[in-house]
Amino acid sequence: MSYQAPIKDILFVMNELAGLSHVASLPGYEDATPETVQAVLEEAARFNEEVVAPLNVTGDQQPSTWRDGNVTTTPGFKAAFKQFGEAGWQGVLHPQEFGGQGLPKLVATACNEMLNAANLSFALCPLLTDGALEALLTAGNAAQQALYVPKLLSGEWTGTMNLTEPQAGSDLAMVRTRAEPQGDGTYKIFGTKIFITYGEHDMAENIVHLVLARTPDAPAGVKGISLFIVPKFKVDASGALGERNDVHCVSIEHKLGIKASPTAVLQFGDHGGALGHLVGEENRGLEYMFIMMNAARFAVGMQGIAVADRAYQKAVAYARERVQSRPVDGSAREAVTIVHHPDVKRMLMTMRALTEGARALAYFAAAQADVAHHDANPIVRGAAQAMYEYLVPIVKGWGTEMSLDVTSLGVQVHGGMGFIEETGVAQYYRDARILTIYEGTTAIQANDLVGRKTLRDRGEVARAICAKVAATETELTQAGGVAGKVAERLAAGREALLRVVDYVLANAKDDPNAVFAGSVPYLKLAGIVLCGWQLGRALLAAQAHRDADPLFFDAKIATARFFADHVLTQAPGLATTITEGADSALQLDDAHF
Amino acid sequence: MSYQAPIKDILFVMNELAGLSHVASLPGYEDATPETVQAVLEEAARFNEEVVAPLNVTGDQQPSTWRDGNVTTTPGFKAAFKQFGEAGWQGVLHPQEFGGQGLPKLVATACNEMLNAANLSFALCPLLTDGALEALLTAGNAAQQALYVPKLLSGEWTGTMNLTEPQAGSDLAMVRTRAEPQGDGTYKIFGTKIFITYGEHDMAENIVHLVLARTPDAPAGVKGISLFIVPKFKVDASGALGERNDVHCVSIEHKLGIKASPTAVLQFGDHGGALGHLVGEENRGLEYMFIMMNAARFAVGMQGIAVADRAYQKAVAYARERVQSRPVDGSAREAVTIVHHPDVKRMLMTMRALTEGARALAYFAAAQADVAHHDANPIVRGAAQAMYEYLVPIVKGWGTEMSLDVTSLGVQVHGGMGFIEETGVAQYYRDARILTIYEGTTAIQANDLVGRKTLRDRGEVARAICAKVAATETELTQAGGVAGKVAERLAAGREALLRVVDYVLANAKDDPNAVFAGSVPYLKLAGIVLCGWQLGRALLAAQAHRDADPLFFDAKIATARFFADHVLTQAPGLATTITEGADSALQLDDAHF
Repeated sequence: MSYQAPIKDILFVMNELAGLSHVASLPGYEDATPETVQAVLEEAARFNEEVVAPLNVTGDQQPSTWRDGNVTTTPGFKAAFKQFGEAGWQGVLHPQEFGGQGLPKLVATACNEMLNAANLSFALCPLLTDGALEALLTAGNAAQQALYVPKLLSGEWTGTMNLTEPQAGSDLAMVRTRAEPQGDGTYKIFGTKIFITYGEHDMAENIVHLVLARTPDAPAGVKGISLFIVPKFKVDASGALGERNDVHCVSIEHKLGIKASPTAVLQFGDHGGALGHLVGEENRGLEYMFIMMNAARFAVGMQGIAVADRAYQKAVAYARERVQSRPVDGSAREAVTIVHHPDVKRMLMTMRALTEGARALAYFAAAQADVAHHDANPIVRGAAQAMYEYLVPIVKGWGTEMSLDVTSLGVQVHGGMGFIEETGVAQYYRDARILTIYEGTTAIQANDLVGRKTLRDRGEVARAICAKVAATETELTQAGGVAGKVAERLAAGREALLRVVDYVLANAKDDPNAVFAGSVPYLKLAGIVLCGWQLGRALLAAQAHRDADPLFFDAKIATARFFADHVLTQAPGLATTITEGADSALQLDDAHF
Repeated sequence: MSYQAPIKDILFVMNELAGLSHVASLPGYEDATPETVQAVLEEAARFNEEVVAPLNVTGDQQPSTWRDGNVTTTPGFKAAFKQFGEAGWQGVLHPQEFGGQGLPKLVATACNEMLNAANLSFALCPLLTDGALEALLTAGNAAQQALYVPKLLSGEWTGTMNLTEPQAGSDLAMVRTRAEPQGDGTYKIFGTKIFITYGEHDMAENIVHLVLARTPDAPAGVKGISLFIVPKFKVDASGALGERNDVHCVSIEHKLGIKASPTAVLQFGDHGGALGHLVGEENRGLEYMFIMMNAARFAVGMQGIAVADRAYQKAVAYARERVQSRPVDGSAREAVTIVHHPDVKRMLMTMRALTEGARALAYFAAAQADVAHHDANPIVRGAAQAMYEYLVPIVKGWGTEMSLDVTSLGVQVHGGMGFIEETGVAQYYRDARILTIYEGTTAIQANDLVGRKTLRDRGEVARAICAKVAATETELTQAGGVAGKVAERLAAGREALLRVVDYVLANAKDDPNAVFAGSVPYLKLAGIVLCGWQLGRALLAAQAHRDADPLFFDAKIATARFFADHVLTQAPGLATTITEGADSALQLDDAHF
């Protein structure tokens, strides 16, 4: 099997670190019993292992193709997506009243990890549809919700996010697409959107484009952007499909990776104007789009974790099979499988520790989102929401940055075979490379972390999280031994992080360039420390349960310790770089480079 | 122009850091006058910029193809290689008596950087030919040298290195290819070799394969390997081509990158045996092959530096042109070119500092090789040779590992456009990925660094180099200001490196697994500290010359400082990982993963 869903690892994280039982006790999540969750995960594993994963290589070798405005997806994708929709996988997270399963984000996160590990390209279609669903459920009116949500949940239709234009990538203030009111409540949309994932395809009957555009009198900048529904086929009040709307795919991109996922250039209004329906109020489009983006950013972080796990699995399998060289300690006279060589172990441990750390943090964050939506106590909700929002750019930024390292190590473990495309690991390396770019580059995540997530509350959430880290350190110190050593490294990491938070707060006003020169290192530092924290918690849980399954729990303990020794050790140096390295980062002007 | 040879930067390194004037004063290098060197570099720049660089994209889009045992290279490669040979570029380094230019390795290194930056795939053919030349010049007899060397130097013929077999990659002890003596001094060769770069192509009249094989009574393991010349076409004593030899290309690989470079599977002896000529003595093949490999390893390190510089140039060009977002400090009301954004500056500075640091170290190492070969004083020669040999695995390992980061940042600077193949930066990312693998993976380099280069002399050379680093620190401290700050970081790095050298020496015997679990981090630490050292020297030189060219020298000063603040800061954490992280790296067994 090319992918084996790590259900045991996932359940460990859900139960011991993310607090599944607490989440399941929240009002509205009564259905998320341990039995149901286990059943959902097992069924997700089966479907993704058997149906979706085998299409991953196919998608790389037979990418989506464009012809005369139509996109034909990889053979097998359409049938698999039909099964995906019919089995209800699009609706795990979404309300039962529209046909969803209404399960916690924590459970949906596990399903999404498996789907993405099985096939990043395939998973992008549901990922974008999820974003569209979030936006419609939050900002759409009742009629829009009734019309679009059930079809999106069933997989009959899919959704897209139309933000980027040739001159407007990270900077949405530069969006130029026009929306002209027609006097009947509808709009005509004119403009060009690029990099639209699944902007055109043959896997669903209709595509619901959510499009950022400007009305004629809108203010300049991001405060003048509105959000519109632009369906590929016009839809009547009953949901029946009408004529083709004036939105056309003029090309798809030739990409480094995720080749099966069609990345479309969409032309709106070349034949009289595309019919658009306003979502919510005019000029509040960016706000709504952020709803989609926050969901999508978290989901892209999960993509990083997913592809990292896939790469890890393949590297382990190869290392167990490939015989090469005698042991350096002379313990055998013949060549052994390379899994026995110290540097191969180090590489596998690095892949494993980075992946498990990021998974733990992401699931922890997902549980915070569930608490934020469902806890009876508004103070608890608020605190959980703030924590979730702090973690989103870290899950996205760190979860994807580490996936570049992990998929690169996956190639390295394979030696020369890793460079041969037929081996399959190069695909993970290529596929992963988009993850630090789309849905906001790592720098954009880091700006968010600095601006909205640290400066706005004067570091309150950051310090609150660090207090939780400190509490874990205390527990680790009390446990002593290996745990005590991990506590020391974690403490050094937390102190480094606090030093940086103080630096950010102290300098943002007077020297914003300096603070933003350190924003990505700050994000990485936070990722390192908070993943180390979660793995420290994992170590404690593993020690508590150790005798029930020594093989499994000993590996968790070793992984936490490895992360502390090999990753957390970078934290103090990063803090020095951030707090003392801005001058040298900023010194050169355009002319010097 | 897609590539602009950085002659000014290269000359700065050659003159100020590598000691070109001293090298040119050595016996035998009298021709390497400043005027000659300048002229050679300028001509190399012109040729590589105009002839070789434009073929880089062509090679990616129209890779070499295989049909019926023949390989057709990318359109334009054959003509360019003819020019390359005729202009004498293969012979920069090699003896004048055979038609070479007999210039220092330092000068050849500069030429090779430009060639590789222009086109990694194209440059591989001369790179492998260079290795064959080294082996023949060292271990071949006079007749072999007379027969093969001039043709290889002129580019009429090319050379290959045939080491790898399906079961023998890093572990050459497992080589199975057989060599049967025919009683007339010749041998018949039988076996399969894989991953043979330019093992078959149409760019030269003949291909001189240098092949590792075992004679019938050879001892097991690496002590039973001999080296053979197996020409594609048999050659008579006059050099005239005879009949086709029994070596055939049965396929070429479909690779992640360097697609224009044909990677051949060669079958020897399927039709009665391939005629082979022994090089040197039987069973000393590995020793001779190491001559080729050491040259090739240094050259592959240069490939990393070269592709990193190419990626940097392209990223700078894009960052100067792409307009996106207003400055974070509010200094402009309109969007600006992204080169003005702090994180883009940080990324460009990272690319630049890593590239310039590795370049400085590599050229310094090349100059040591020149001293080692040409100094009149045998003690000086010995010391220089030891220093060169210590540096080779670092130049190879660090020069290529950093190229993965630099080419990845090159993609990141381009945002979404970086992921589109037509942009061209994804090619650098794909091409670079082989560099940490071939000619010995980073782990193999690190084993060499630990074993032959640190343990064998009980750390003598390592400490001698650290003493030189300390001397530079003293100069920097005396200079004060920015230089003083760099001195502090460099001192912390050097102390970390010495701590690790002590650890390696103290533990290699009793706990070799622990030492080798830290071997790659040791290599990276050495790379960081020694590149930081060279950039510290660059800073001093730049301060001395600053007023002559403030724009140029201020950039050198800022780059050295950036490296100290952003890269050297990782050194202490790495040392902790190495000296305290072995247990957790080694704890898991096969069953745990």
